[in-house]
Amino acid sequence: MEKMWSGRFSQSASSLLDEFNASIMFDRELYIEDIEGSIAHATMLQKQGILTQKELENIITGLNQVRSEIESGEFKWNISDEDLHMGIEKRLTVLIGDAGKKLHTARSRNDQVAVDFRRWTLKKNLAIVEAIKKLMAEILVVAKQHTETLIPGMTHLQHAQPTNFGFHLGAYLSMFKRDIARFEDSFKRNNISPLGCAALAGTPHNVDRKMTAELLGFDSVSTNCLDTVSDRDFALEILFNISTMMMHISRLSEELIMWSSYEFGFVELSDEYSTGSSIMPQKKNPDVPELLRGKTGRVYGSLMGLLTVMKGLPLAYNKDTQEDKEGVFDAVKTAEISLEILKEAIKTMEVKPHNMEKACAIGHLSATDLADYLVEKCDIPFREAHFITGRAVAKGEELNTDLSQMEFKYLKEIDERIKEDVMEYLVLRNSMNARTSEGGTATKRTKEQLAYFKDFLEGKN
Amino acid sequence: MEKMWSGRFSQSASSLLDEFNASIMFDRELYIEDIEGSIAHATMLQKQGILTQKELENIITGLNQVRSEIESGEFKWNISDEDLHMGIEKRLTVLIGDAGKKLHTARSRNDQVAVDFRRWTLKKNLAIVEAIKKLMAEILVVAKQHTETLIPGMTHLQHAQPTNFGFHLGAYLSMFKRDIARFEDSFKRNNISPLGCAALAGTPHNVDRKMTAELLGFDSVSTNCLDTVSDRDFALEILFNISTMMMHISRLSEELIMWSSYEFGFVELSDEYSTGSSIMPQKKNPDVPELLRGKTGRVYGSLMGLLTVMKGLPLAYNKDTQEDKEGVFDAVKTAEISLEILKEAIKTMEVKPHNMEKACAIGHLSATDLADYLVEKCDIPFREAHFITGRAVAKGEELNTDLSQMEFKYLKEIDERIKEDVMEYLVLRNSMNARTSEGGTATKRTKEQLAYFKDFLEGKN
Amino acid sequence: MEKMWSGRFSQSASSLLDEFNASIMFDRELYIEDIEGSIAHATMLQKQGILTQKELENIITGLNQVRSEIESGEFKWNISDEDLHMGIEKRLTVLIGDAGKKLHTARSRNDQVAVDFRRWTLKKNLAIVEAIKKLMAEILVVAKQHTETLIPGMTHLQHAQPTNFGFHLGAYLSMFKRDIARFEDSFKRNNISPLGCAALAGTPHNVDRKMTAELLGFDSVSTNCLDTVSDRDFALEILFNISTMMMHISRLSEELIMWSSYEFGFVELSDEYSTGSSIMPQKKNPDVPELLRGKTGRVYGSLMGLLTVMKGLPLAYNKDTQEDKEGVFDAVKTAEISLEILKEAIKTMEVKPHNMEKACAIGHLSATDLADYLVEKCDIPFREAHFITGRAVAKGEELNTDLSQMEFKYLKEIDERIKEDVMEYLVLRNSMNARTSEGGTATKRTKEQLAYFKDFLEGKN
Amino acid sequence: MEKMWSGRFSQSASSLLDEFNASIMFDRELYIEDIEGSIAHATMLQKQGILTQKELENIITGLNQVRSEIESGEFKWNISDEDLHMGIEKRLTVLIGDAGKKLHTARSRNDQVAVDFRRWTLKKNLAIVEAIKKLMAEILVVAKQHTETLIPGMTHLQHAQPTNFGFHLGAYLSMFKRDIARFEDSFKRNNISPLGCAALAGTPHNVDRKMTAELLGFDSVSTNCLDTVSDRDFALEILFNISTMMMHISRLSEELIMWSSYEFGFVELSDEYSTGSSIMPQKKNPDVPELLRGKTGRVYGSLMGLLTVMKGLPLAYNKDTQEDKEGVFDAVKTAEISLEILKEAIKTMEVKPHNMEKACAIGHLSATDLADYLVEKCDIPFREAHFITGRAVAKGEELNTDLSQMEFKYLKEIDERIKEDVMEYLVLRNSMNARTSEGGTATKRTKEQLAYFKDFLEGKN
Repeated sequence: MEKMWSGRFSQSASSLLDEFNASIMFDRELYIEDIEGSIAHATMLQKQGILTQKELENIITGLNQVRSEIESGEFKWNISDEDLHMGIEKRLTVLIGDAGKKLHTARSRNDQVAVDFRRWTLKKNLAIVEAIKKLMAEILVVAKQHTETLIPGMTHLQHAQPTNFGFHLGAYLSMFKRDIARFEDSFKRNNISPLGCAALAGTPHNVDRKMTAELLGFDSVSTNCLDTVSDRDFALEILFNISTMMMHISRLSEELIMWSSYEFGFVELSDEYSTGSSIMPQKKNPDVPELLRGKTGRVYGSLMGLLTVMKGLPLAYNKDTQEDKEGVFDAVKTAEISLEILKEAIKTMEVKPHNMEKACAIGHLSATDLADYLVEKCDIPFREAHFITGRAVAKGEELNTDLSQMEFKYLKEIDERIKEDVMEYLVLRNSMNARTSEGGTATKRTKEQLAYFKDFLEGKN
Repeated sequence: MEKMWSGRFSQSASSLLDEFNASIMFDRELYIEDIEGSIAHATMLQKQGILTQKELENIITGLNQVRSEIESGEFKWNISDEDLHMGIEKRLTVLIGDAGKKLHTARSRNDQVAVDFRRWTLKKNLAIVEAIKKLMAEILVVAKQHTETLIPGMTHLQHAQPTNFGFHLGAYLSMFKRDIARFEDSFKRNNISPLGCAALAGTPHNVDRKMTAELLGFDSVSTNCLDTVSDRDFALEILFNISTMMMHISRLSEELIMWSSYEFGFVELSDEYSTGSSIMPQKKNPDVPELLRGKTGRVYGSLMGLLTVMKGLPLAYNKDTQEDKEGVFDAVKTAEISLEILKEAIKTMEVKPHNMEKACAIGHLSATDLADYLVEKCDIPFREAHFITGRAVAKGEELNTDLSQMEFKYLKEIDERIKEDVMEYLVLRNSMNARTSEGGTATKRTKEQLAYFKDFLEGKN
Repeated sequence: MEKMWSGRFSQSASSLLDEFNASIMFDRELYIEDIEGSIAHATMLQKQGILTQKELENIITGLNQVRSEIESGEFKWNISDEDLHMGIEKRLTVLIGDAGKKLHTARSRNDQVAVDFRRWTLKKNLAIVEAIKKLMAEILVVAKQHTETLIPGMTHLQHAQPTNFGFHLGAYLSMFKRDIARFEDSFKRNNISPLGCAALAGTPHNVDRKMTAELLGFDSVSTNCLDTVSDRDFALEILFNISTMMMHISRLSEELIMWSSYEFGFVELSDEYSTGSSIMPQKKNPDVPELLRGKTGRVYGSLMGLLTVMKGLPLAYNKDTQEDKEGVFDAVKTAEISLEILKEAIKTMEVKPHNMEKACAIGHLSATDLADYLVEKCDIPFREAHFITGRAVAKGEELNTDLSQMEFKYLKEIDERIKEDVMEYLVLRNSMNARTSEGGTATKRTKEQLAYFKDFLEGKN
Repeated sequence: MEKMWSGRFSQSASSLLDEFNASIMFDRELYIEDIEGSIAHATMLQKQGILTQKELENIITGLNQVRSEIESGEFKWNISDEDLHMGIEKRLTVLIGDAGKKLHTARSRNDQVAVDFRRWTLKKNLAIVEAIKKLMAEILVVAKQHTETLIPGMTHLQHAQPTNFGFHLGAYLSMFKRDIARFEDSFKRNNISPLGCAALAGTPHNVDRKMTAELLGFDSVSTNCLDTVSDRDFALEILFNISTMMMHISRLSEELIMWSSYEFGFVELSDEYSTGSSIMPQKKNPDVPELLRGKTGRVYGSLMGLLTVMKGLPLAYNKDTQEDKEGVFDAVKTAEISLEILKEAIKTMEVKPHNMEKACAIGHLSATDLADYLVEKCDIPFREAHFITGRAVAKGEELNTDLSQMEFKYLKEIDERIKEDVMEYLVLRNSMNARTSEGGTATKRTKEQLAYFKDFLEGKN
């Protein structure tokens, strides 16, 4: 195929190369950004006297037609056009003639692709933020209903202290809020226009970079062109931010999977978000959280892939960098569908408070309360209190009785300093409500936290 | 959509779940393996009296028709069928009725997918081996032409000792031969049939696992069904083996890129495997090796992705494992096209012996020979010889003369023990040919190595 | 500090460089391999007439003294010696004078470090194989005791079919056996001597590479010196093999952690291999499997690290490669201690058959058996049988009765074709024992598998 | 060994467990943070009436003594103490008796370790920012000297357009500035106190979290305790930020290595930051940039390791998380020494303007200028101009003349519209200075950029 850059070449590229080299089958994802970028560039060229008004009009009309053709499915994507940018420019030239050939004045594919990919990524930062907020809103709905539902707080997957389920979900609200902050910071840090950097060194044409930056919604223009054309930090950042978010999702998924087991029975996913077995008719499988957990690996892989690609590349643009897009596209798509399906799964799941509360009666969840009682009421140093409590627990195990159910006489046997008022401390709900330090699990503290997240979602803090 | 496992469900799956959950858009890659697997399974069921001869015939005819429909493009891939296996079985049942419903007797999707994916991967191990051999054959053609072409052997990208270009390419033949060994070992280790493991625990039906194993070309049947249904070691192995192979390719690519620079000028890639610039008409870019180098990252990412997916999964099958395929498919496709295009790039590149040899005259490449002379002829301990040579090099730098061109008088000044016979040692070609230890660069040793690789490619060692 | 290679340098290296550059603080791990390698090299040099008998004796005596000094702790590791090899050679020269300086004849640090690191890694392949076998032996002891202990076989963490605990552990025996095969294959593939490759091109001295290979236990000598000095495939392989093994360990660990929870209660780790909480006296935490699960990440990281290091390195040796060792040392150490501690944890854990069996009565584990009954006894196609069973399960849920406990009348109501003989099929133990296909869970099949692993450990297959 | 949490245990932990489990051999890195955290905690406890003034004084005196003991090397680190926190508390109790045992009131190891590790990491964010600034300052010194030194700007490692070396270095200043922004954002986002979260649910004691936060320099307190005790986002962030920074360093290193080769000869690293060869006395190896490039892999590995560790962990604290520290410690240490040594290497390297400028005369670097001339002066559409220039380049190749040296007559032959005023456009220095768009390479633009970075380093923007 005749290439647009083929002036000095004596043979044409092999079709194997076309297949290997071409990005057009995936970078067409960027078509809106490419067309908008070209319109902004042309508008500026006209203002600077490089294009005539007529040429500009032709270009805009032509590009809008290309856009329609793409959106209607008429556009012919041709692997021998190499990439989206060439494909569109070629079609434009067919449509409007010579003015099309002038569009690339003062521009190179290097800054063109940098603009398109950066803008696409920036937009996706914002789209993901919105999707996280929707998920948070759904979690919040559930959390608010369960600020008094006891659930065993665990460490090491062992019952530790009684908490409430609203508080537990609040932990994920916290994580997702941090995720949002990362996407937003990344947006701000990278909202800088590469347009006008040309191949690597800037352009001798009298361009107005600030104008195109403004037309395209960038906050400013980049400082050094050589850096700009091969800067992919924004792509690494979105991959890292999605990786961290998927890690959080994988943690919630792990819990949903365990909670859906017969052993836990804390929640039941709706039929709509479960699947069955081809051989075992009784099965109801938590496929959604399992796939979510699995998709974490995919996203980590894309992050690691791009970090590897960028390692040791000399300046400026190298073709290796073409490997930046597919991983980012895939990770973003994964993030978007994951957030949506998790939201639906949570919205439609059945919470089983009875099972959660029943589970709290196992594992001496109020043991820390006994230790705290010994410290507070009997003035016993914490380390000693901890040791005494250990013996009470051992007694409970021996009697096959949870500490929250143990008779006073046994406690007294263990240490004389323990008085009857200890019994209040050992009641599970009291234990939960006792943890009133800021950020603690006490229902009133939990409500405070949930109100904070509600305000956040409403843009109030 | 009505699912094949929906007996106990009260609501149907959401379409969002369909989209998220379905693998049919990528696992159709396995259609041949799936159909062959089903035919083998049915053949065995008939032999064991579980299917009638008539039912078997219907199943085989039906499956062959499905295969034709797929290959002709008529087959309707429907996302609500979830996966390839369900899609094919459903169509089969439409085509042949009740016999189709019997095919799944004594089988589960768990062992079915394990068979399909494992066989696909095993075949690809062999296909990659063949592709590596073709690449090696092409490298060998070039290497044989250059066993006397001097090129500076480098460490730390600094000229070190004179070698020949055939020897240099021989290093890559060595690497690719190890790659082959890894793919072959992996094939042997994993050529074990999962069929008959059913969901996780085997089946009560009177199946003959050895028979299906044999029909499908497996060496044996797996030992423990619970392990088998979630064993993805074969997939990790091919990802690792491709990663290591791509790492080797990235090293050769790095060299091709540097050798193509104006600074080195050691090779020129053919126009057919190069590309131009959209803005700089004089450019001829080594896109092929750059993309090859970049694609290393992609493959590393897939390896890391699957390792992450498998981490910490309880037995047996979990839906996370569905994330095993896309990465493997992509890595295999990358491997295959990479091997082919690298072969073509090497076949069509122009080697520039003149530039390689000219480069050897810089950097005192025969310095080690001087040291060796001092050891051998003057009985000076190596460490001292090394030190004396250092001074000779410094002298050369001062005189702006390469050691291989230095006049005898200067050498004598540095150490009296040096006699005129040293001059032979300093000639670059002599230096190269002096390295006659096994595996060394001397032309005769290089030829020996290339003959060894030729024999290997011809199956002789 | 004066360096051994400093002949041509006008300034001495900065101490910052010493700190950054030196590997001596970690590569001393290789001291035995280095000394053995030097003795083999010297022995060969003497045989070839390059060293005198006297010089050889001095060298051997000197190196043995260095070894004693290292082992007694007397040896002074000095960061300015850069690396182990220089450190030892320098001390040797102090001890025995000029003969020490001759030791490096026909050798370079490049092949020296390649020999040392490769041999260390090869030995560790074998050591890990032994450690895996010890772990397998311990698992086998437990497995044999539990071939009749029912445990719910799970997919998607949902009860699926009844299996036995011996069979479940057999799945891990299978995985570890594959791990052994990988370490052994890697040993065989890489047991090739680099010694004699010198810097990159071989040596002009009349060396006998086969002799040193034999003295050091290598099977053969490497084919191409340029490849050999920067080949780190053996290091990547051990990292991958450990990663896969740790992945298996992480799966077992995940199960041990869940089984140790109050919800499951299937096992209890011994006090000796558990830890407590600083604040919650009742806690008994499964720290060992948790850390094992966590250490998987560490090992994956080392694999990814070395893959990244090797990507795109031009031939031959580059200093980047120095980053090969710490990750491998750490991964091997992690593997060794992990295998040992897991072995001890399994040996000392308490299995709770009662809880395992109790759990089997939940989740309609014999549902597949009902479907199989319908196929076998009533000649109903599997897909239809699956659907009928789904309705039986729904009935059970409605009645709050497990299928294994359901009265016949209800089953009959669902489908008339069901006869009273179905009741035998629904008994859980019968269900487990019905799965008699090769590799299945039936007790007799399980015993067969365990016998196979026993034979394997005794070297019989 | 008797553990502080051993009340309920009947056997003591095995020494193997001690070795496997203990973090004290690496977490002692946190001793300052631990002691400061304890002092803040105790100060608050006293204010809240939980400790007496006397107890507080004893605790502070005791902790200061522990600190002295650690700093003087007297302190006995004992593996059976498990971790730093236990080690210090135990010693404190020996020193001051019962008051020591009270210190752990209203605190758990979970929030204690979260405080210590978070503060350490936050401090390191700031320390790395300072180290980057020092590196930037040194690069700036060199860059300023070379704003008129021509160097071939490259894409695909092919000469593309003439730029200046100051501009080239400016690209790295841009990258490092972005790195700083990431570390600073991460600091701000994570400067939140975990203290008071206790084990996972808060504490019933009347603590003042805001007070301890303020004493320790945190901006605020965390929102949800369950999240806080297992939040390691701050650790992932520093690993990602270091990874990206090391990626930038690896790019500069790659260039330094190539520039140090005989083929390029653009720079020479000082003897102080180079090393020699054990066998080739003439070698001067750029070990520093090679190691820097290699260390990128190490840091990527640590990032991947921690991402893997965190994947799928249920709430809240699990022992897996102990694997968070070593990777972060190592990455931070790597970052710090890398920044310092790179700064020194750049400060002491010799730049070779003559070689850089000579290289510009190869590769038709002013080709784009010819195309621009055709557009601007002859009103030829860019695509056509690009094609004509391609033919001019082909002519140059035929004549073996760089476009910048070509006689006018040849240009005229190619296209009549070319006039003699074209000759000014083809002069290399003119070409460089023509690129005056914002961020471009023209000397005046380069100076503007360097001034911007100078202002940045001086805190002015």
